[in-house]
Amino acid sequence: MKRIGVLTSGGDAPGMNAAIRAVVRSAIYNGVEVYGIRRGYAGLLARDFVEMSLGSVGDIIHRGGTILRTARSEEFKTKEGMEKAVNNIKQLGIEGLVVIGGDGSFRGAAELAKRGVPTIGIPGTIDNDIPFTDYSIGFDTAVNTVVEAVNKIRDTATSHERTFIIEVMGRESGHIALYSGVACGAETILVPEKPYTIKGVCDKIMSGYKRGKLHSIIILAEGAGNAFEVGQKIKEMTGLETRVIVLGHLQRGGTPTAFDRILASQMGGKAVELLLNGVSDKMIGWVKGELVVTDLEKIFSAQKPLNEELYNLASVLAI
Amino acid sequence: MKRIGVLTSGGDAPGMNAAIRAVVRSAIYNGVEVYGIRRGYAGLLARDFVEMSLGSVGDIIHRGGTILRTARSEEFKTKEGMEKAVNNIKQLGIEGLVVIGGDGSFRGAAELAKRGVPTIGIPGTIDNDIPFTDYSIGFDTAVNTVVEAVNKIRDTATSHERTFIIEVMGRESGHIALYSGVACGAETILVPEKPYTIKGVCDKIMSGYKRGKLHSIIILAEGAGNAFEVGQKIKEMTGLETRVIVLGHLQRGGTPTAFDRILASQMGGKAVELLLNGVSDKMIGWVKGELVVTDLEKIFSAQKPLNEELYNLASVLAI
Amino acid sequence: MKRIGVLTSGGDAPGMNAAIRAVVRSAIYNGVEVYGIRRGYAGLLARDFVEMSLGSVGDIIHRGGTILRTARSEEFKTKEGMEKAVNNIKQLGIEGLVVIGGDGSFRGAAELAKRGVPTIGIPGTIDNDIPFTDYSIGFDTAVNTVVEAVNKIRDTATSHERTFIIEVMGRESGHIALYSGVACGAETILVPEKPYTIKGVCDKIMSGYKRGKLHSIIILAEGAGNAFEVGQKIKEMTGLETRVIVLGHLQRGGTPTAFDRILASQMGGKAVELLLNGVSDKMIGWVKGELVVTDLEKIFSAQKPLNEELYNLASVLAI
Amino acid sequence: MKRIGVLTSGGDAPGMNAAIRAVVRSAIYNGVEVYGIRRGYAGLLARDFVEMSLGSVGDIIHRGGTILRTARSEEFKTKEGMEKAVNNIKQLGIEGLVVIGGDGSFRGAAELAKRGVPTIGIPGTIDNDIPFTDYSIGFDTAVNTVVEAVNKIRDTATSHERTFIIEVMGRESGHIALYSGVACGAETILVPEKPYTIKGVCDKIMSGYKRGKLHSIIILAEGAGNAFEVGQKIKEMTGLETRVIVLGHLQRGGTPTAFDRILASQMGGKAVELLLNGVSDKMIGWVKGELVVTDLEKIFSAQKPLNEELYNLASVLAI
Repeated sequence: MKRIGVLTSGGDAPGMNAAIRAVVRSAIYNGVEVYGIRRGYAGLLARDFVEMSLGSVGDIIHRGGTILRTARSEEFKTKEGMEKAVNNIKQLGIEGLVVIGGDGSFRGAAELAKRGVPTIGIPGTIDNDIPFTDYSIGFDTAVNTVVEAVNKIRDTATSHERTFIIEVMGRESGHIALYSGVACGAETILVPEKPYTIKGVCDKIMSGYKRGKLHSIIILAEGAGNAFEVGQKIKEMTGLETRVIVLGHLQRGGTPTAFDRILASQMGGKAVELLLNGVSDKMIGWVKGELVVTDLEKIFSAQKPLNEELYNLASVLAI
Repeated sequence: MKRIGVLTSGGDAPGMNAAIRAVVRSAIYNGVEVYGIRRGYAGLLARDFVEMSLGSVGDIIHRGGTILRTARSEEFKTKEGMEKAVNNIKQLGIEGLVVIGGDGSFRGAAELAKRGVPTIGIPGTIDNDIPFTDYSIGFDTAVNTVVEAVNKIRDTATSHERTFIIEVMGRESGHIALYSGVACGAETILVPEKPYTIKGVCDKIMSGYKRGKLHSIIILAEGAGNAFEVGQKIKEMTGLETRVIVLGHLQRGGTPTAFDRILASQMGGKAVELLLNGVSDKMIGWVKGELVVTDLEKIFSAQKPLNEELYNLASVLAI
Repeated sequence: MKRIGVLTSGGDAPGMNAAIRAVVRSAIYNGVEVYGIRRGYAGLLARDFVEMSLGSVGDIIHRGGTILRTARSEEFKTKEGMEKAVNNIKQLGIEGLVVIGGDGSFRGAAELAKRGVPTIGIPGTIDNDIPFTDYSIGFDTAVNTVVEAVNKIRDTATSHERTFIIEVMGRESGHIALYSGVACGAETILVPEKPYTIKGVCDKIMSGYKRGKLHSIIILAEGAGNAFEVGQKIKEMTGLETRVIVLGHLQRGGTPTAFDRILASQMGGKAVELLLNGVSDKMIGWVKGELVVTDLEKIFSAQKPLNEELYNLASVLAI
Repeated sequence: MKRIGVLTSGGDAPGMNAAIRAVVRSAIYNGVEVYGIRRGYAGLLARDFVEMSLGSVGDIIHRGGTILRTARSEEFKTKEGMEKAVNNIKQLGIEGLVVIGGDGSFRGAAELAKRGVPTIGIPGTIDNDIPFTDYSIGFDTAVNTVVEAVNKIRDTATSHERTFIIEVMGRESGHIALYSGVACGAETILVPEKPYTIKGVCDKIMSGYKRGKLHSIIILAEGAGNAFEVGQKIKEMTGLETRVIVLGHLQRGGTPTAFDRILASQMGGKAVELLLNGVSDKMIGWVKGELVVTDLEKIFSAQKPLNEELYNLASVLAI
């Protein structure tokens, strides 16, 4: 193997740069050249390539976002687009491709693999909704960003004796909400995977106030309801003042945590090792404290379950 | 003077605790007792008092919010409420009152002063919209909170080549928007004090993109337009993807900056000194690097102007 | 079981409060009373007890240190001290004890267990040097603290083109050095487990400079040499300006990361469950993504190995 | 004026990049070209120049350090060096020079001015020891860095009931120590400007402990004594456990605060305005809330006094 490519695709996630760095340095360490493909599959079609050196990934391990940038590409999803992509890869002499991204990005990767391009996926998405990996790159940072935000809100919530509803990312999954909710000691955690009633939420708030609590923090995954509606209904039912904060894109940014940098570094190194060993059409996961390799195909039909033990613990601790 | 009182009122602001600490310690240093009045004027009516000791304000200088809490009181604005408040103060033997808060809180303070209660106001509000002081307690922290948030957004904005509209606090004034906008190097700063057109905003964005910029940051004071509408219009006019973040109550919280802690400490110490010297019905301001005392009455009829020099500099630097 | 006790012992670690909270709330949830024992074994001897309520552990999950405090006790290590401790526990009606701390604290716990006090250990130490657990409470926070410090130093290192030696905690183990070194992208990581020569370190630095690097970051565990001596020798051998920073106790403090809070919450909940099930003389570990229980005795004779894979990866990435 | 130059010299300070950006953008806005001179006066002699564009200062406002880097130059202090520097400036067509740095850097600037190079100085040093300006660029960030460090130490200090001595920068001046000490609520602040006795320090600590304090924080400017010796003597005299932290170069780094970015932006804009107006041999200061211009010569013979009011307030508040 003489030359590989690396791209980031889908929503950006903190730690993607650490993964790019690890891919580039591991490859060069093994005598393999690396081309960076800018703006994901769109750049693959537009031949937006750049040769990567050791220095080109210097001083990026601590930066959020992705130096290769990311974009959507409708053309890539067409038959013509796919063929053009394969041609570009071949013309450039790229003999292996590392795709850092989420579910959608891996579908593209699997298509390329079918067409003879050796491809390895690295899970990078703050949502942590990719099955067959306990953590995806960016999740730990996003959870810590929520936790820091709630730290700030806690002060003002106590001062005003208010109920705060914090909406976090997660349209179809409550991973960020659950982990950050436990970490913040939130009174209530609302996730799409678990039905709830406003009355139940209000009962919990009121029992806390009766016990002398001066504020109440509710963490709501965006897929579990509209934060403003939830806030309004709680106000109507309890008479308490509620405030809503939608954290939104704040969760995507920021310097990655140590955990995300290390995870990304390990996955990047492993991706190169796999390509060198002739492996293709796989995703690298972090499962029970180890790097584990899974067929890309298996990912598309599976769903990542919520951490039930942690969800139950949350109820106990918010007694 | 044997005993004074201190309360926080209106929206909470980081640094209020440092001011409370300074009032308490300066008073005790001068042999004067201090009562904390909880929940602002509401607590004054409800006799929600607590005697403060040196230890009661230990380990609070770094905490956001206010340990005395704050609340609104409609009753206090009535004639009966005001009389009740004055009676409570006299019965408790409070011979001077320090009110930490904003414009609305000072109106109450001025009324009490008229009724014979020596009263000193300390400006505490993140909005920095109080005239006769260059800085109010909490402003520096709020500006830094915005700056940190934009740091995070910058990563993801660059990665996706997007335009971000960040809505910050300021219904009638653009102080937070202006200071944080300059500090972030925002392309565009929209404040209520200055008219603007969406077309002008779009022209600026497009000229940046033509020069090779990968993202655009717009800071919008809440009083200068609805962030979502502005984002939608920019998208329509430029074709660029826009994203909106409303920072909201995040700006109220957090551990206060060194500047806010020092400012609050100085103002708290000065408030006690003034009461001991028989001064009343005044606000302490920080004007051109010095503590300056102003009649409360003057504040209600004045308006704090936007920093024009800084506004002009912002345009030059965002060339 | 009607009543249990909880104490923190040894060096404090961020996340200990989250563990205390989880012990208290899980116990109360299960109808069991909890006594907090202040200042570790010293407080056990001095009967420095406090009954814990739901509210007593409110608003502590985000605080560094330990609200129960910690101290050393020579008396506890004597036969008389041990008997006194057992008596105090029995007189107070404590039927189970949770000990949050490190190796030394667990020796005391094992002694108590031998004398009939059901005891569960929770690993809390920033050093992460306890075997049979992949992570101890506080390690993730400490590593992130080092990473943040290096972020700051990186700026000034680049500006001055200097070599920085950062000494981190770890007298006998290089866990903090290794994890933070990988996360920072340090050029060189020096740990007690791995021999090294100054010449080797200098060769690496010089090859980086030849490649155009503007700074060099060396992470040194305190057990791997004196930072000032290492700095001096590098200067002599390379002629480069070196600077030394000893992070010291900074690493113990700070608000715990989400990871540490969640880990601590899980371990605290599990400790109560084990006591309720009649288990004793065990430590709870986090092994390969799961809570795993180990005999306290086994811990004393084992050593926690350095993560060899990560150590090797570090060399590859610092090429 | 067609072309100006800008350089950073001496120790780096957070905010220097914001000043560089402001110089470059203000100049280009006014139709003037800008050359960056790398590595201070050393680069001036070595002709290490780079033309600056609007884009070259994009995305740097939030970065610590200085993109132009800094270095010492012994050659520049010689007569030959100075002549060479003037020649290089003239050959490059530089008609005005902005020097961002401290006292030593300004001496060089004044020499250049004498030789016919219009020169303006911008005070950039974390120490804040330059007279005729209330704040120099980087001071606010450094003070906040100390405050954050003490926040972390406070947790562990309380948990162990220990006395911490924190050594901060300031060989001949106690500005960082005083401001950070007030902001942290330190029990004791030791600065070179004020004599003290260890006995006095110990009396203060003991009176705090008697009042129930669980920890004691002493902020020591490096010029006011050796932190380890002070710690040892306190231990001997009081029997209390002491710990020492030397913050060192941590204080130089980090992303600049909003205050430092705004100050730097204003000074950078003003420097260009002054050069365009034919002004030379001056430093821009921030005095009582305004930009004020002072002869460079006056700076060398003056000393910046400690803020006496703040020093006195510190004693009152640490009662």
